[in-house]
Formats: sequence, C-alpha cells, structure tokens
Amino acid sequence: MKRWLITNGYFATMDDTRPLFKGWMAVEGSRIADMGEGEAPAEWLEAAAETVDGQDLLFLPGLVNTHGHAAMSLLRGYADDLALQDWLQNHMWPMEAKFTGDDVYWGSALAAAEMIKTGTTTFLDMYDHMHRVGEVVDQSGLRAVLTRGMIGMVPEDVQKAKLQDAVTFAREWHGAADGRITVMMCPHAPYTCPPDFIVKVVEAAHELNLSLHTHMSETRFEVEQNVRDYGVRPPEHLDRLGFFSRPALVAHAVHLTDEEIALLAERNVAVSHNPVSNLKLASGVARVPELLAAGVTVGLGTDSVASNNNLDLFEEIRLAALLHKGVTGDPTVIPAAEALRLGTTYGARALGLEGQTGILKPGMKADFIAVSTAQTHFVPRTDLISHLVYAASGSDVKHVWADGRQLLRGGELLTLDEERIRYEAQACFERLRG
Amino acid sequence: MKRWLITNGYFATMDDTRPLFKGWMAVEGSRIADMGEGEAPAEWLEAAAETVDGQDLLFLPGLVNTHGHAAMSLLRGYADDLALQDWLQNHMWPMEAKFTGDDVYWGSALAAAEMIKTGTTTFLDMYDHMHRVGEVVDQSGLRAVLTRGMIGMVPEDVQKAKLQDAVTFAREWHGAADGRITVMMCPHAPYTCPPDFIVKVVEAAHELNLSLHTHMSETRFEVEQNVRDYGVRPPEHLDRLGFFSRPALVAHAVHLTDEEIALLAERNVAVSHNPVSNLKLASGVARVPELLAAGVTVGLGTDSVASNNNLDLFEEIRLAALLHKGVTGDPTVIPAAEALRLGTTYGARALGLEGQTGILKPGMKADFIAVSTAQTHFVPRTDLISHLVYAASGSDVKHVWADGRQLLRGGELLTLDEERIRYEAQACFERLRG
Repeated sequence: MKRWLITNGYFATMDDTRPLFKGWMAVEGSRIADMGEGEAPAEWLEAAAETVDGQDLLFLPGLVNTHGHAAMSLLRGYADDLALQDWLQNHMWPMEAKFTGDDVYWGSALAAAEMIKTGTTTFLDMYDHMHRVGEVVDQSGLRAVLTRGMIGMVPEDVQKAKLQDAVTFAREWHGAADGRITVMMCPHAPYTCPPDFIVKVVEAAHELNLSLHTHMSETRFEVEQNVRDYGVRPPEHLDRLGFFSRPALVAHAVHLTDEEIALLAERNVAVSHNPVSNLKLASGVARVPELLAAGVTVGLGTDSVASNNNLDLFEEIRLAALLHKGVTGDPTVIPAAEALRLGTTYGARALGLEGQTGILKPGMKADFIAVSTAQTHFVPRTDLISHLVYAASGSDVKHVWADGRQLLRGGELLTLDEERIRYEAQACFERLRG
Repeated sequence: MKRWLITNGYFATMDDTRPLFKGWMAVEGSRIADMGEGEAPAEWLEAAAETVDGQDLLFLPGLVNTHGHAAMSLLRGYADDLALQDWLQNHMWPMEAKFTGDDVYWGSALAAAEMIKTGTTTFLDMYDHMHRVGEVVDQSGLRAVLTRGMIGMVPEDVQKAKLQDAVTFAREWHGAADGRITVMMCPHAPYTCPPDFIVKVVEAAHELNLSLHTHMSETRFEVEQNVRDYGVRPPEHLDRLGFFSRPALVAHAVHLTDEEIALLAERNVAVSHNPVSNLKLASGVARVPELLAAGVTVGLGTDSVASNNNLDLFEEIRLAALLHKGVTGDPTVIPAAEALRLGTTYGARALGLEGQTGILKPGMKADFIAVSTAQTHFVPRTDLISHLVYAASGSDVKHVWADGRQLLRGGELLTLDEERIRYEAQACFERLRG
C-alpha cells in the first residue's frame, strides 16, 4: 500500500480532541494512518513515497452532501423564480421524463466535476438510471450513497418494476467501487407514494438490510395534503408505515412540530437540511437549532442544481450558520464550528458513514480537501474555522482526495475529463430542450 | 483619449432596452463610447489602441456596495457568533478605539483588494480617518462614496471637532480622484446621536450640498429605545429632524411598518439592504419586496467584514434573491434580474451615481467587470443572468475596469500590491490585539 505524507499544513480535523493544529498527516492506502503537530517523525519521512507541502493550505474532511439529484445539473438555470407547481409540472417533469441513461450519466458527471472542484467528497444521490450514476461514482473516485427514487402513484405493474429495479440496483451496487458506494431504498415522498407501496419499500429495505431515504415535510402544502389524505402529518404517517424501523434519513423536514422533532430524535431519524433549495422554492426555513438541541443528526444538502443552482456546499455551510441566527433572533445559534460539522461529521453520520468519513483521524478513510489560505479573505489570521465558514467558498479548494486517491490537483480534475463533460452536458441539454 | 475595444463577448448591460447580447463595446477615456451586437464596426476596429477578446467572458456593470466600513477588514474572524452587545462592547469597540490612521489605511486597502478581486467597482464607506480611505480609493482606482461616521453621544467639544473633521474632509475630498470620490454627511445612527447633533449635521449637508447617510432601524432593540427616548420610531424621528430634506440613504432598515415604507417612498429615501450582516447579527430580515413595490430605491451592502465576513457582493445578490422567497413564501419575488439590479443599477441610484455607473451603455462611466463563463457551474448555457445570480461568485471575476482603467487582469491586481497589503494588514491586527 502506498504511503505518503503531508507536512507543514494546518488541519481542521473536526475531531474534538484535537480540532485544529499545524503539523503533518500520513496516509496509507485508502486510510489516514497517523497525524500530529509540528514536524513529521523520521520514520514517516522515510516511509513516504511522496510528500505534499502543506504551506498555505488548510486541510479538512471532504464535505458531505446529504441530498441531491445529480443528473438535474442538466437543468441549471432552465427555470427559476417560478411558483412550485408551475416549476415542477410545466418545466422539471416534462424535461426529466425525456432523460435517457446517457443524460443521467452526463448530468451526473457534470455534478461530480462541480462537487470535486468545490470540495465535496461524499454525496447522496436520489434519481433514476442509477447504474449510470454508479458508473460516474466509480470513475470519479467520489464516495456516494445512491438510491433509486421511486414515485409510487403509478399503475401496479410500473410500481412493481420500479421496486424490482431498486432491489436489483441495490444487489449489484451496494458496496461497489471498492466500498465507496452504499445504497439506500427510497420511496420519493409520502405525497407521491401510496401507503402500501411505502410499506413494500420498507420490507425490501429490511430484507436487504439497507437504510431508507425520502423527502418529508418540505412544503406546508404537502403536510396539509397528508392530513387530508391520511389523517396525520408526514412524520406520524411514515412512523405508522414502519419507515423509522430502519435507519432513515429524511430530506428537508422544514415544517415540523415540537412533537415531530421529539419523534425524529426518539426514532434516531437523520435530517438533510437544504437551506438554499428551501429558500429558492419558498418552502421555508427548517427548525435546525431545535433539531440539533433535540439530538437529531442533521446534515446539509444542496438538493438539485435546478433549485440551488450550484453544488458548492460551502454555501450551505455558511447559510446554515447565517440563516438560523436571523430567523431565531439569536446570533449565538449554529456557530462556525457547528456549521462545519453539519457539512462534514454530522453529514457522514446522517449517511450511515460515521467512522469512515467526515473527520480527520487515524483509521478514517482518507477523504479530505486542501483549501488555499493565501488569499485576502483569509487575512488576518484570527480564526481559520471562522474564515472557512464565513469567508471562504468552494473556489478556494485547491486539492481533493477521496479514499486516499487524489481527485483534484491545483484546481484540475484528475479522474474526470472536464472539457468533455461540459461539451456533452451542453449537447444533452440542447437535445432535451428539442 | 485612449480608445479600446472588447469584441466577441456577452454583455449583461442592465439596460432594459438591450439587456443581454453578444457583441462588442468601445471605451474612450473613462467612458463607454459605443456598443452593439455582432462584429465590431470597421471604424472602431481601426481606432482601437487595444482589443480585448471577450471569448468565454460575460461583461456586466461593476458591482456597487452601498454600505460598509472597509477598515474593519482588520477584524475579520476576530469575534463571531456572539450576542450583539457583547460583540460591540467587548470586542469591536475596544479594538476600533485603538485604530490609527495607518490601521485605517491598511484595513481599507485590504478591503479594496478584496472588492476589486470579487467585482465591486463602487463602494460606500463610513468610518473615521477618512482621508486615509480617500488615499486608498485614489490609489486603487475604485469609485467610492466616503463619509465620516459620527457618533454624537460625546462631550460638546468632541462633537464639534467631529463635525468640523467631517466638513473639512468633505471640502477636500468631494469630487477628488478625478471625480471618482463623492462625499456624504453621516451621523452614525439615531441611537448614537442626540437630536440636536443630527440637526447640525443636516444643516452642514445643506450648506455643502451633500447627501446624508446613517444607520436606521437595524435592530428591534434600537427601534424600541427610540420610542422610549423620543416618543417615535426612527423614521419619523429622522423625518422630524429634517434628515429627509436632503437626498438620503439609510442602511439596514430591517424593522419597518407599512407607514414607514410609505414615508421612505414619499421622501425618496434610498435603503441599503445588508442581508448577510442582518442575518449574522440576528437583526432580522428587511422587507425588501415591500420596499421595492413601494418604489423605494434599494441597493445592497456587505456592511463590514466583522459581520459578514467577506466583501463578495455576489453573495448579497444571491442571498437577496433567495432569502425573501423563503421568508415571504413566494418563489417569484426578487427574480434573478432584479437581484442583479439591486447589486448594480439600483445601488448606483442609491448612492446618487445614477447616470454614471451601474449600467452599461454609451456615455456611462466605464465601470465594468468580466466573469469567466468557461466553468462547470455555467453549464448548460440556459440563462446567463440566472447563472450570475444563483451559480456564480466573486471568484469567477477575471477582469475589472473602473473609470476606463483596468484594475484586475486575469485575477491579478494592477493598482494595489496584494502581498504587501496582506502582510501589513496582518501586522496591524497583531499590534491591535496587543
């Protein structure tokens, strides 16, 4: 196994026992082998096949994007500033209905390129043609949680075929790409899936021993519809259907009562907070400080580019730190370090990857990024965590590694052909627009 | 006068008669001379001393930052996530009290460097030692509205000295730097200035024929205090003191009643909206859609780096587009083009610079920036204005011109020594921290 070394860098580890220090880190194969303050020990300097000079670089765990639809990068800027139903029914769904496997491949590749360049090393993707997304993950070197999102308001044979597709995908891809891919099972949302279909998906998740993912309580409208259709709000509805009997991650969770927050905490349900998308689609502001106070694991998600419109997770990290202060009136909620945890450690936990990624310490997967600190917006050197959260952006990311492999060097992609991806994604969009 | 030409570029002009086109633009001296679609005319190609290839570049007006305190860049990351009074009284004010003229110079230079690199060509600055800020503006090539902010809760002789300082500064610097500098008169805020002092400042503004600037209704606390102290809320208070008898720009205006919005519209008072700072300090969310609907001119401001923590106005533009959708529940408010107007045309109008900057058309000052579109987050080519607002950031800015002079070329500063500024700013901070 290749051994190599970073020297002379700052490390924001997200490890509470040693949160920030200047020193060295050794990587062996796909994992962090050792790290420490000051000069690297002689034995590591001798054993290292390569040494990276960490001067003017701040190393931190690769960011974790806990909710998105990568292929929809093909629809960036295609329809903005519209009412939700107009946006969905007249713009998104008609275009998405035309997506072929190739569109999903190139759209996901465009997303992968953007994520790597802005410091994300792990992402969750919910879409269709998931084996094509799997190919992108395999080639790009990223870590991913992939899930075939199923809209269940369809004839029974179509329902069945979708579920079979999801099960087949799970059997073939869970643990693939050297273990970088894990799979979840995913009914799209309570408002798009009949209860008996959700129960079937939960059963399949039990059989396959997989976690569950879904959209939940994103809009006030869907919460009210759930009450009309099923007599209860979405969290209780999902609880009754056994959804929380598996490890579960729900996206959005904007409209929650105190009781629902307590329920999520009790059932150990994780939440993917998507602040940019929730604002852009006018869904509202999730009660993140209350969720965190209740002990719920909260990660950050971009949602798709169609409602964002980029995949720079630094923006979600900053907005999580800013937005909840302004909305609650309390400038002490979600301080910088907590915002960074949302985008790293907590995100990894939300995806069931705790102990693998989201933190820099020996034994963890070597998923990490290097941010350039030789910039005006890192002056003066007061608090590097504050600068990361409040001043930096994805464009400050210089190098990226995942599973011990370098994916970005000096801003250049090493595993993907960016020129070709831009060309093909543009061609896909033009064909889809017709 | 030097004549030069840009060919083959996209132009987002903010001119409603011709908002976006591919073509050419001619500059003569400090002004835009002509522009048009397609190929540049032969007479311009012959007359041009230089031609800039606009391939893969999107040109737009330089951004306009309508409220800030540049020198406070020295306090970036020094104190975050604190309650407002703790932040001010125990961290900001004790440090600022130690600021010398040199600190103001280097802090403002750091701010100028960051603003140029992220596409701002005009900024308002409210601070002390303003002739040192004037030097930075002169050297940097930026356009600026400078104003000596006066806290008036001081002994009468100090009050008098401050006002004299402001008047002297105005006499010496209004119209300086080839007309790139204009000056406003500025009592710091109704809660920091006795009414009779505000009246004196208004009188001075009348004598000097200058506009007025102040902080107004930033926090709920100061509104309540104003009612306790003077029996009315800040807008009516300022109106009674004659503040709106001059062209006026108020910063923040977070807490406004319907009647106050109508009053600002009637008195033609402009508002500087500072969404990042208002969230970070937990002040709240200004009623921007209502202000715009009432016909109030609204520009965007970063406020100081100490409550932001950067000067990338693209962030304010995007947040203005996102935040008000989420807070009002209406995804159609402040669409992308309107958000970009807030950061350009409306900002210029708020600063009294309408007809000079904030729009690309013949006769206007040649204040403009070029954003690189050869990037993953500009794919596909659906809507360049959407990409600017929702996907881009200040780090996409490649070239910057102000008053016809290039300030940034390929990301490199041409008028300021960035290395030296970073070094000196760091040294200032370390000395201040003691």
